[in-house]
Amino acid sequence: MEKAGGEGERSAATVVDGGEGDLFLSLRRLEISDNEKGFVELLSQLSPSSTPLSDADFRTRFAELAALGEDHVIVVAENPRTGKIVATGSVFVERKFLRGAGKVGHIEDVVVDAAARGYHLGQRVVRYLTDHAKAVGCYKVILDCTSDLRSFYGKCGFKEKDIQMTIYF
Amino acid sequence: MEKAGGEGERSAATVVDGGEGDLFLSLRRLEISDNEKGFVELLSQLSPSSTPLSDADFRTRFAELAALGEDHVIVVAENPRTGKIVATGSVFVERKFLRGAGKVGHIEDVVVDAAARGYHLGQRVVRYLTDHAKAVGCYKVILDCTSDLRSFYGKCGFKEKDIQMTIYF
Repeated sequence: MEKAGGEGERSAATVVDGGEGDLFLSLRRLEISDNEKGFVELLSQLSPSSTPLSDADFRTRFAELAALGEDHVIVVAENPRTGKIVATGSVFVERKFLRGAGKVGHIEDVVVDAAARGYHLGQRVVRYLTDHAKAVGCYKVILDCTSDLRSFYGKCGFKEKDIQMTIYF
Repeated sequence: MEKAGGEGERSAATVVDGGEGDLFLSLRRLEISDNEKGFVELLSQLSPSSTPLSDADFRTRFAELAALGEDHVIVVAENPRTGKIVATGSVFVERKFLRGAGKVGHIEDVVVDAAARGYHLGQRVVRYLTDHAKAVGCYKVILDCTSDLRSFYGKCGFKEKDIQMTIYF
């Protein structure tokens, strides 16, 4: 069950029904040990083309992103009973020349494990990333999503603005 | 007048009518001296909130982006007669964990000076950035735009996919 809710739970843990008792899920940043905790498998729920990464490949990518410091943040929620990552999302900060050398936060790869949906974990992930973008001085935060997620992101405070166009190589 | 056209002009210069004779405009990467050549003023045609940058602020941002190497490229076209930048666009490369640690190119801030439109400079800028994303191994390149630019980006090979949602702080 969702016990915490509304604005008051911004920094609180989400309490979920773990089957044998409540679980307290708090958000934290991705750690290098999370490759063993199903982080990449969770991403495969977002993009079926995702494949497991070797520990070496995971560590390489982790180090590349860590080198970006506060310009790239990945947040996760771990189920303490199973040791599995059940929600994640990322934000990277684009530095521009326009708007007085302004910065824009880009939210990417938000996903909640199918078995952990209904506890507002997605909203908490998005709020964490949005708060980060604001804290580091971005003048806006943006994301692209399918139109069926318009309502979800609307609840997170987003307004529809433009269209996204793509070339796949 | 546009003399070069079609696929054959991918790496050629654009020939424009400079009023007192043709001008040959080729694309190159942004240089640190371009703050004196109207680069930021050009961006103000894209975002009215853009303001001129001090030389110090320009150099700081330039260095931050240069440190990203091939993960952030800004291309410009300079009018050799006026010494002004008349077209630009940028692409940055996002490194992901999904898709086997895949990479995505994000095209941003494409603008052609109002007086230099009609010579396919915009298409050449977008093609330069798209080619870069492909060359560095991105599995796709994406951009957000207003719906009135759907046709322009369609000519550049893009297909509409998702919606963009935004929070302004």
